[in-house]
Amino acid sequence: MRLMSVKYFVNLKKMKNIAILGTGMVGDAIGTKLVSLGYKVMMGSRTANNEKAVAWSTRNGILAVSGTFSEAASFGDIIFNCTQGQVSLEALQLAGRENLQGKILIDVANPLDFSKGMPPSLTVCNTDSLGELIQRQFTDVKVVKALNTMNCQLMVNPGLLKDPGNLFLCGNDTEAKIEVGGLLRSFGWEKIIDLGDITAARGTEQILPIWVRIMGTLGTPMFNFSIVQ
Amino acid sequence: MRLMSVKYFVNLKKMKNIAILGTGMVGDAIGTKLVSLGYKVMMGSRTANNEKAVAWSTRNGILAVSGTFSEAASFGDIIFNCTQGQVSLEALQLAGRENLQGKILIDVANPLDFSKGMPPSLTVCNTDSLGELIQRQFTDVKVVKALNTMNCQLMVNPGLLKDPGNLFLCGNDTEAKIEVGGLLRSFGWEKIIDLGDITAARGTEQILPIWVRIMGTLGTPMFNFSIVQ
Repeated sequence: MRLMSVKYFVNLKKMKNIAILGTGMVGDAIGTKLVSLGYKVMMGSRTANNEKAVAWSTRNGILAVSGTFSEAASFGDIIFNCTQGQVSLEALQLAGRENLQGKILIDVANPLDFSKGMPPSLTVCNTDSLGELIQRQFTDVKVVKALNTMNCQLMVNPGLLKDPGNLFLCGNDTEAKIEVGGLLRSFGWEKIIDLGDITAARGTEQILPIWVRIMGTLGTPMFNFSIVQ
Repeated sequence: MRLMSVKYFVNLKKMKNIAILGTGMVGDAIGTKLVSLGYKVMMGSRTANNEKAVAWSTRNGILAVSGTFSEAASFGDIIFNCTQGQVSLEALQLAGRENLQGKILIDVANPLDFSKGMPPSLTVCNTDSLGELIQRQFTDVKVVKALNTMNCQLMVNPGLLKDPGNLFLCGNDTEAKIEVGGLLRSFGWEKIIDLGDITAARGTEQILPIWVRIMGTLGTPMFNFSIVQ
Protein backbone atom coordinates (compact mmCIF):
# COMPACT_ATOMS: atom_id res chain seq x y z
CA MET A 1 0.00 0.00 0.00
CA ARG A 2 2.80 2.30 0.88
CA LEU A 3 4.68 1.38 -2.35
CA MET A 4 1.58 2.02 -4.43
CA SER A 5 1.29 5.49 -2.95
CA VAL A 6 4.87 6.30 -3.85
CA LYS A 7 4.28 5.10 -7.40
CA TYR A 8 1.14 7.21 -7.62
CA PHE A 9 3.03 10.23 -6.41
CA VAL A 10 5.79 9.70 -8.99
CA ASN A 11 3.23 9.49 -11.79
CA LEU A 12 1.72 12.76 -10.70
CA LYS A 13 4.95 14.75 -11.02
CA LYS A 14 4.41 17.88 -13.05
CA MET A 15 4.56 17.29 -16.78
CA LYS A 16 6.87 19.67 -18.54
CA ASN A 17 5.51 22.52 -20.61
CA ILE A 18 6.47 22.40 -24.24
CA ALA A 19 7.03 25.11 -26.82
CA ILE A 20 6.64 24.59 -30.54
CA LEU A 21 8.41 27.20 -32.65
CA GLY A 22 6.81 27.29 -36.09
CA THR A 23 3.25 26.99 -37.35
CA GLY A 24 3.76 24.74 -40.37
CA MET A 25 2.74 21.10 -40.83
CA VAL A 26 5.60 19.87 -38.65
CA GLY A 27 4.78 22.13 -35.70
CA ASP A 28 1.09 21.35 -36.05
CA ALA A 29 1.67 17.58 -36.06
CA ILE A 30 4.07 17.57 -33.11
CA GLY A 31 2.03 20.07 -31.08
CA THR A 32 -1.14 18.06 -31.61
CA LYS A 33 0.60 14.85 -30.58
CA LEU A 34 1.98 16.44 -27.41
CA VAL A 35 -1.46 17.76 -26.40
CA SER A 36 -2.91 14.28 -26.96
CA LEU A 37 -0.28 12.99 -24.53
CA GLY A 38 -1.40 15.51 -21.92
CA TYR A 39 1.27 18.17 -22.26
CA LYS A 40 0.56 21.89 -22.11
CA VAL A 41 1.86 23.26 -25.39
CA MET A 42 2.41 26.79 -26.68
CA MET A 43 2.86 27.29 -30.39
CA GLY A 44 5.07 30.30 -31.10
CA SER A 45 5.41 32.43 -34.18
CA ARG A 46 6.52 35.96 -35.20
CA THR A 47 3.23 37.54 -34.14
CA ALA A 48 0.98 36.91 -31.16
CA ASN A 49 -2.07 36.29 -33.32
CA ASN A 50 -0.74 34.13 -36.13
CA GLU A 51 -3.78 32.67 -37.89
CA LYS A 52 -2.44 29.13 -38.12
CA ALA A 53 -1.28 29.11 -34.49
CA VAL A 54 -4.65 30.38 -33.25
CA ALA A 55 -6.49 27.81 -35.40
CA TRP A 56 -4.25 25.04 -34.05
CA SER A 57 -4.83 26.22 -30.48
CA THR A 58 -8.61 26.39 -30.95
CA ARG A 59 -8.67 22.90 -32.50
CA ASN A 60 -6.67 21.37 -29.66
CA GLY A 61 -8.48 22.62 -26.57
CA ILE A 62 -7.32 24.02 -23.27
CA LEU A 63 -3.86 22.47 -23.24
CA ALA A 64 -2.97 24.30 -26.47
CA VAL A 65 -2.16 27.99 -26.51
CA SER A 66 -0.36 30.29 -28.92
CA GLY A 67 1.96 33.26 -28.61
CA THR A 68 5.09 34.89 -29.91
CA PHE A 69 8.36 33.01 -30.33
CA SER A 70 9.53 34.73 -27.16
CA GLU A 71 6.42 33.88 -25.13
CA ALA A 72 6.54 30.27 -26.27
CA ALA A 73 10.24 29.87 -25.46
CA SER A 74 9.67 31.37 -22.04
CA PHE A 75 6.71 29.04 -21.43
CA GLY A 76 8.40 25.83 -22.55
CA ASP A 77 10.63 23.62 -20.45
CA ILE A 78 11.42 21.83 -23.71
CA ILE A 79 11.47 23.63 -27.07
CA PHE A 80 10.82 22.08 -30.49
CA ASN A 81 12.35 23.99 -33.40
CA CYS A 82 9.82 23.34 -36.17
CA THR A 83 10.61 26.44 -38.20
CA GLN A 84 11.92 26.28 -41.75
CA GLY A 85 15.65 25.67 -41.64
CA GLN A 86 16.49 28.83 -43.52
CA VAL A 87 14.90 31.03 -40.84
CA SER A 88 15.59 28.89 -37.76
CA LEU A 89 18.45 31.01 -36.42
CA GLU A 90 16.42 34.18 -36.81
CA ALA A 91 13.43 32.58 -35.10
CA LEU A 92 15.63 31.47 -32.21
CA GLN A 93 17.04 34.99 -31.86
CA LEU A 94 13.46 36.26 -31.65
CA ALA A 95 12.69 33.54 -29.10
CA GLY A 96 15.39 35.10 -26.96
CA ARG A 97 18.59 33.70 -25.55
CA GLU A 98 17.37 34.27 -21.99
CA ASN A 99 14.22 32.22 -22.66
CA LEU A 100 16.14 29.29 -24.11
CA GLN A 101 18.99 29.17 -21.61
CA GLY A 102 19.68 25.74 -20.12
CA LYS A 103 16.70 24.15 -21.88
CA ILE A 104 16.46 21.24 -24.27
CA LEU A 105 15.94 22.34 -27.86
CA ILE A 106 14.78 19.53 -30.15
CA ASP A 107 15.82 20.62 -33.63
CA VAL A 108 13.53 19.08 -36.23
CA ALA A 109 14.37 21.58 -39.00
CA ASN A 110 16.18 20.90 -42.26
CA PRO A 111 18.18 23.62 -44.04
CA LEU A 112 16.36 23.11 -47.33
CA ASP A 113 16.70 25.68 -50.10
CA PHE A 114 13.84 25.53 -52.62
CA SER A 115 14.87 28.81 -54.30
CA LYS A 116 16.38 26.97 -57.27
CA GLY A 117 13.36 24.68 -57.62
CA MET A 118 13.12 20.93 -57.06
CA PRO A 119 14.94 19.02 -55.80
CA PRO A 120 15.95 21.37 -52.97
CA SER A 121 19.59 21.90 -52.06
CA LEU A 122 20.91 22.52 -48.55
CA THR A 123 21.89 25.96 -47.24
CA VAL A 124 24.53 24.34 -45.03
CA CYS A 125 26.10 20.90 -45.33
CA ASN A 126 29.22 18.75 -45.55
CA THR A 127 31.52 20.31 -42.91
CA ASP A 128 28.72 21.98 -40.93
CA SER A 129 24.99 21.60 -40.29
CA LEU A 130 22.02 23.54 -39.02
CA GLY A 131 22.12 21.58 -35.77
CA GLU A 132 25.72 22.65 -35.21
CA LEU A 133 25.02 26.28 -36.21
CA ILE A 134 22.28 26.44 -33.59
CA GLN A 135 24.44 24.77 -30.93
CA ARG A 136 27.33 27.18 -31.63
CA GLN A 137 25.11 30.27 -31.48
CA PHE A 138 23.27 29.07 -28.36
CA THR A 139 26.03 27.41 -26.37
CA ASP A 140 24.00 27.07 -23.18
CA VAL A 141 21.08 25.33 -24.92
CA LYS A 142 21.02 21.53 -25.09
CA VAL A 143 20.41 20.95 -28.80
CA VAL A 144 19.15 17.48 -29.73
CA LYS A 145 18.69 16.91 -33.46
CA ALA A 146 15.87 14.45 -34.05
CA LEU A 147 12.87 13.55 -36.23
CA ASN A 148 14.20 15.45 -39.27
CA THR A 149 14.61 12.39 -41.48
CA MET A 150 10.94 11.66 -42.12
CA ASN A 151 7.50 13.02 -42.94
CA CYS A 152 5.76 14.81 -40.07
CA GLN A 153 2.80 12.42 -39.90
CA LEU A 154 5.25 9.59 -39.37
CA MET A 155 7.19 11.59 -36.74
CA VAL A 156 4.23 11.43 -34.38
CA ASN A 157 2.76 8.10 -35.47
CA PRO A 158 5.39 5.52 -36.41
CA GLY A 159 2.63 2.89 -36.39
CA LEU A 160 1.49 4.27 -39.76
CA LEU A 161 4.19 2.07 -41.29
CA LYS A 162 4.08 -1.74 -41.10
CA ASP A 163 7.77 -1.50 -40.17
CA PRO A 164 8.39 1.97 -38.67
CA GLY A 165 12.16 1.82 -39.18
CA ASN A 166 14.63 3.91 -37.21
CA LEU A 167 14.64 7.30 -35.60
CA PHE A 168 18.04 9.01 -35.41
CA LEU A 169 19.06 11.50 -32.79
CA CYS A 170 22.27 13.26 -31.86
CA GLY A 171 23.49 15.99 -29.53
CA ASN A 172 26.25 16.87 -27.11
CA ASP A 173 24.31 16.41 -23.86
CA THR A 174 23.75 12.78 -22.90
CA GLU A 175 21.05 13.47 -20.30
CA ALA A 176 19.15 15.64 -22.78
CA LYS A 177 19.28 12.82 -25.32
CA ILE A 178 17.95 10.36 -22.75
CA GLU A 179 15.07 12.69 -21.94
CA VAL A 180 14.29 13.30 -25.62
CA GLY A 181 14.51 9.57 -26.28
CA GLY A 182 11.91 8.97 -23.58
CA LEU A 183 9.62 11.60 -25.07
CA LEU A 184 9.96 10.09 -28.54
CA ARG A 185 9.25 6.63 -27.18
CA SER A 186 5.97 8.08 -25.92
CA PHE A 187 5.32 9.04 -29.58
CA GLY A 188 5.62 5.32 -30.36
CA TRP A 189 9.26 5.13 -31.44
CA GLU A 190 11.11 1.99 -30.44
CA LYS A 191 14.20 1.77 -32.62
CA ILE A 192 16.05 4.97 -31.73
CA ILE A 193 19.70 5.28 -32.79
CA ASP A 194 21.91 7.78 -30.94
CA LEU A 195 24.53 8.84 -33.51
CA GLY A 196 26.68 10.74 -31.04
CA ASP A 197 27.43 14.43 -30.76
CA ILE A 198 25.76 17.26 -32.66
CA THR A 199 28.18 16.98 -35.60
CA ALA A 200 26.19 13.88 -36.60
CA ALA A 201 23.52 16.36 -37.71
CA ARG A 202 25.61 16.59 -40.90
CA GLY A 203 24.59 13.00 -41.51
CA THR A 204 20.90 13.26 -40.70
CA GLU A 205 20.48 16.54 -42.62
CA GLN A 206 22.37 15.26 -45.66
CA ILE A 207 20.03 12.27 -45.84
CA LEU A 208 17.37 14.70 -47.10
CA PRO A 209 18.55 14.69 -50.74
CA ILE A 210 18.05 10.92 -51.03
CA TRP A 211 14.82 11.15 -49.01
CA VAL A 212 13.43 13.57 -51.63
CA ARG A 213 14.48 11.28 -54.49
CA ILE A 214 12.98 8.20 -52.81
CA MET A 215 9.72 10.10 -52.27
CA GLY A 216 9.70 10.88 -56.00
CA THR A 217 10.34 7.24 -56.89
CA LEU A 218 7.79 5.74 -54.48
CA GLY A 219 5.25 8.51 -55.05
CA THR A 220 4.62 8.92 -51.33
CA PRO A 221 6.33 10.53 -48.32
CA MET A 222 5.16 7.67 -46.11
CA PHE A 223 8.38 5.68 -45.82
CA ASN A 224 11.36 5.60 -43.55
CA PHE A 225 14.94 4.38 -43.33
CA SER A 226 15.55 1.18 -41.44
CA ILE A 227 19.06 0.05 -40.65
CA VAL A 228 19.30 -3.68 -41.35
CA GLN A 229 22.06 -6.02 -40.23
CA MET B 1 15.10 -31.33 -78.75
CA ARG B 2 15.40 -28.47 -81.15
CA LEU B 3 14.16 -26.03 -78.47
CA MET B 4 16.74 -27.30 -76.02
CA SER B 5 19.47 -26.66 -78.55
CA VAL B 6 18.28 -23.12 -79.03
CA LYS B 7 18.25 -22.58 -75.29
CA TYR B 8 21.76 -23.97 -75.05
CA PHE B 9 22.92 -21.65 -77.76
CA VAL B 10 21.36 -18.64 -76.00
CA ASN B 11 23.11 -19.52 -72.75
CA LEU B 12 26.39 -19.70 -74.56
CA LYS B 13 26.19 -16.15 -75.92
CA LYS B 14 29.42 -14.35 -75.27
CA MET B 15 29.63 -12.93 -71.77
CA LYS B 16 30.76 -9.34 -71.68
CA ASN B 17 34.29 -8.51 -70.64
CA ILE B 18 34.52 -6.32 -67.58
CA ALA B 19 37.08 -3.75 -66.49
CA ILE B 20 37.72 -2.83 -62.88
CA LEU B 21 39.46 0.51 -62.44
CA GLY B 22 41.14 0.57 -59.04
CA THR B 23 43.00 -2.00 -56.97
CA GLY B 24 41.57 -1.29 -53.52
CA MET B 25 39.21 -3.41 -51.44
CA VAL B 26 36.21 -2.40 -53.56
CA GLY B 27 37.82 -3.32 -56.89
CA ASP B 28 39.14 -6.55 -55.40
CA ALA B 29 35.73 -7.58 -54.06
CA ILE B 30 33.80 -6.76 -57.24
CA GLY B 31 36.44 -8.23 -59.55
CA THR B 32 36.54 -11.45 -57.55
CA LYS B 33 32.75 -11.70 -57.62
CA LEU B 34 32.62 -11.19 -61.38
CA VAL B 35 35.24 -13.89 -61.99
CA SER B 36 33.24 -16.26 -59.79
CA LEU B 37 30.26 -15.57 -62.06
CA GLY B 38 32.32 -16.53 -65.12
CA TYR B 39 33.25 -13.10 -66.48
CA LYS B 40 36.65 -12.25 -67.89
CA VAL B 41 37.86 -9.33 -65.82
CA MET B 42 40.80 -6.97 -66.20
CA MET B 43 41.85 -4.92 -63.19
CA GLY B 44 43.37 -1.63 -64.26
CA SER B 45 45.69 0.73 -62.42
CA ARG B 46 48.27 3.45 -63.15
CA THR B 47 51.01 0.97 -63.96
CA ALA B 48 50.96 -2.33 -65.83
CA ASN B 49 52.51 -4.25 -62.95
CA ASN B 50 50.67 -2.91 -59.92
CA GLU B 51 51.45 -5.30 -57.09
CA LYS B 52 47.87 -5.53 -55.79
CA ALA B 53 46.42 -6.01 -59.29
CA VAL B 54 48.90 -8.78 -60.10
CA ALA B 55 48.22 -10.49 -56.77
CA TRP B 56 44.47 -10.28 -57.39
CA SER B 57 44.91 -11.69 -60.90
CA THR B 58 47.10 -14.55 -59.67
CA ARG B 59 44.60 -15.40 -56.92
CA ASN B 60 41.65 -15.46 -59.31
CA GLY B 61 42.92 -17.70 -62.12
CA ILE B 62 42.73 -17.46 -65.88
CA LEU B 63 39.64 -15.23 -66.10
CA ALA B 64 41.44 -12.50 -64.15
CA VAL B 65 44.09 -10.33 -65.74
CA SER B 66 45.65 -6.97 -64.92
CA GLY B 67 46.86 -3.99 -66.92
CA THR B 68 46.91 -0.23 -67.12
CA PHE B 69 43.75 1.88 -66.77
CA SER B 70 43.85 2.30 -70.54
CA GLU B 71 44.27 -1.41 -71.28
CA ALA B 72 41.48 -2.30 -68.88
CA ALA B 73 39.07 0.28 -70.31
CA SER B 74 39.82 -0.94 -73.82
CA PHE B 75 39.26 -4.57 -72.76
CA GLY B 76 36.01 -4.01 -70.87
CA ASP B 77 32.53 -3.89 -72.40
CA ILE B 78 31.41 -2.67 -69.00
CA ILE B 79 33.64 -0.59 -66.70
CA PHE B 80 33.48 -0.40 -62.92
CA ASN B 81 34.95 2.78 -61.42
CA CYS B 82 36.34 1.52 -58.11
CA THR B 83 38.99 4.21 -57.72
CA GLN B 84 38.99 6.63 -54.81
CA GLY B 85 36.56 9.42 -55.54
CA GLN B 86 39.17 12.14 -55.29
CA VAL B 87 41.18 10.65 -58.17
CA SER B 88 38.36 9.15 -60.23
CA LEU B 89 38.34 11.84 -62.92
CA GLU B 90 42.10 11.58 -63.34
CA ALA B 91 41.90 7.79 -63.54
CA LEU B 92 39.19 8.01 -66.19
CA GLN B 93 41.31 10.46 -68.19
CA LEU B 94 44.14 7.93 -68.06
CA ALA B 95 41.70 5.20 -69.08
CA GLY B 96 41.12 7.22 -72.23
CA ARG B 97 38.00 8.77 -73.67
CA GLU B 98 38.26 6.57 -76.78
CA ASN B 99 38.34 3.40 -74.65
CA LEU B 100 35.26 4.39 -72.66
CA GLN B 101 33.13 5.72 -75.49
CA GLY B 102 29.59 4.32 -75.64
CA LYS B 103 30.20 1.92 -72.76
CA ILE B 104 28.45 1.50 -69.42
CA LEU B 105 30.46 2.92 -66.54
CA ILE B 106 29.27 1.73 -63.13
CA ASP B 107 30.44 4.41 -60.71
CA VAL B 108 30.93 2.91 -57.25
CA ALA B 109 33.21 5.70 -55.98
CA ASN B 110 32.48 8.20 -53.23
CA PRO B 111 34.12 11.65 -53.17
CA LEU B 112 35.40 11.23 -49.63
CA ASP B 113 38.00 13.62 -48.24
CA PHE B 114 39.91 12.20 -45.28
CA SER B 115 42.49 15.02 -45.30
CA LYS B 116 40.87 16.70 -42.30
CA GLY B 117 40.61 13.41 -40.37
CA MET B 118 37.50 11.50 -39.35
CA PRO B 119 34.70 11.73 -40.13
CA PRO B 120 35.47 12.40 -43.81
CA SER B 121 33.83 15.27 -45.69
CA LEU B 122 32.86 15.22 -49.36
CA THR B 123 34.90 16.90 -52.11
CA VAL B 124 31.70 17.57 -54.05
CA CYS B 125 28.11 17.61 -52.79
CA ASN B 126 24.80 19.45 -52.48
CA THR B 127 24.31 20.91 -55.99
CA ASP B 128 26.65 18.48 -57.73
CA SER B 129 28.09 15.01 -57.30
CA LEU B 130 30.93 12.81 -58.49
CA GLY B 131 28.51 10.84 -60.66
CA GLU B 132 27.43 14.03 -62.42
CA LEU B 133 31.00 15.30 -62.76
CA ILE B 134 31.95 12.07 -64.53
CA GLN B 135 28.85 12.14 -66.74
CA ARG B 136 29.52 15.77 -67.73
CA GLN B 137 33.17 15.12 -68.57
CA PHE B 138 32.41 11.89 -70.45
CA THR B 139 29.17 12.73 -72.21
CA ASP B 140 29.18 9.63 -74.45
CA VAL B 141 29.63 7.22 -71.54
CA LYS B 142 26.56 5.70 -69.87
CA VAL B 143 27.24 6.43 -66.21
CA VAL B 144 25.23 4.37 -63.72
CA LYS B 145 25.85 5.22 -60.07
CA ALA B 146 25.40 2.13 -57.92
CA LEU B 147 26.69 0.15 -54.93
CA ASN B 148 28.29 3.19 -53.28
CA THR B 149 26.04 3.18 -50.21
CA MET B 150 27.48 0.09 -48.51
CA ASN B 151 30.54 -1.88 -47.49
CA CYS B 152 32.25 -3.74 -50.35
CA GLN B 153 31.74 -7.21 -48.86
CA LEU B 154 28.03 -6.52 -48.82
CA MET B 155 28.08 -5.15 -52.39
CA VAL B 156 28.92 -8.60 -53.73
CA ASN B 157 27.18 -10.71 -51.12
CA PRO B 158 23.90 -9.21 -49.88
CA GLY B 159 23.14 -12.55 -48.22
CA LEU B 160 25.63 -11.61 -45.49
CA LEU B 161 22.77 -9.64 -43.89
CA LYS B 162 19.65 -11.33 -42.54
CA ASP B 163 17.73 -8.56 -44.33
CA PRO B 164 19.94 -7.26 -47.17
CA GLY B 165 18.03 -3.98 -47.54
CA ASN B 166 18.02 -1.88 -50.68
CA LEU B 167 20.46 -1.15 -53.45
CA PHE B 168 20.09 2.29 -55.07
CA LEU B 169 21.04 3.10 -58.63
CA CYS B 170 20.64 6.10 -60.90
CA GLY B 171 21.73 7.28 -64.32
CA ASN B 172 20.50 8.97 -67.47
CA ASP B 173 20.36 5.89 -69.72
CA THR B 174 17.41 3.59 -69.03
CA GLU B 175 18.77 0.61 -70.97
CA ALA B 176 22.10 0.88 -69.19
CA LYS B 177 20.30 0.86 -65.84
CA ILE B 178 18.34 -2.23 -66.85
CA GLU B 179 21.56 -4.02 -67.81
CA VAL B 180 23.31 -2.97 -64.60
CA GLY B 181 20.24 -4.02 -62.61
CA GLY B 182 20.48 -7.48 -64.17
CA LEU B 183 24.17 -7.73 -63.35
CA LEU B 184 23.54 -6.68 -59.74
CA ARG B 185 20.72 -9.20 -59.42
CA SER B 186 23.32 -11.82 -60.34
CA PHE B 187 25.28 -10.54 -57.32
CA GLY B 188 22.23 -11.48 -55.24
CA TRP B 189 20.45 -8.11 -55.05
CA GLU B 190 16.67 -8.22 -55.14
CA LYS B 191 15.41 -4.89 -53.82
CA ILE B 192 16.91 -2.43 -56.30
CA ILE B 193 15.55 1.13 -56.33
CA ASP B 194 16.06 3.24 -59.47
CA LEU B 195 16.21 6.84 -58.20
CA GLY B 196 16.10 8.42 -61.65
CA ASP B 197 18.72 10.40 -63.54
CA ILE B 198 22.34 10.90 -62.55
CA THR B 199 21.56 13.96 -60.40
CA ALA B 200 20.24 11.46 -57.84
CA ALA B 201 23.92 10.67 -57.19
CA ARG B 202 23.78 13.75 -54.93
CA GLY B 203 21.46 11.69 -52.77
CA THR B 204 23.39 8.44 -52.73
CA GLU B 205 26.76 10.15 -52.20
CA GLN B 206 25.43 12.40 -49.42
CA ILE B 207 24.19 9.33 -47.55
CA LEU B 208 27.85 8.60 -46.76
CA PRO B 209 28.10 11.01 -43.79
CA ILE B 210 25.31 9.19 -41.93
CA TRP B 211 26.67 5.82 -43.07
CA VAL B 212 29.98 6.66 -41.37
CA ARG B 213 28.21 7.74 -38.16
CA ILE B 214 26.04 4.61 -38.10
CA MET B 215 29.14 2.47 -38.57
CA GLY B 216 30.66 4.22 -35.55
CA THR B 217 27.54 3.64 -33.48
CA LEU B 218 27.04 -0.02 -34.45
CA GLY B 219 30.76 -0.80 -34.43
CA THR B 220 30.56 -2.60 -37.76
CA PRO B 221 30.31 -1.73 -41.46
CA MET B 222 28.04 -4.73 -42.03
CA PHE B 223 24.68 -2.96 -42.26
CA ASN B 224 22.56 -1.41 -44.94
CA PHE B 225 19.68 0.98 -45.50
CA SER B 226 16.27 -0.55 -46.06
CA ILE B 227 13.37 1.60 -47.14
CA VAL B 228 10.31 0.57 -45.11
CA GLN B 229 6.71 1.50 -45.82
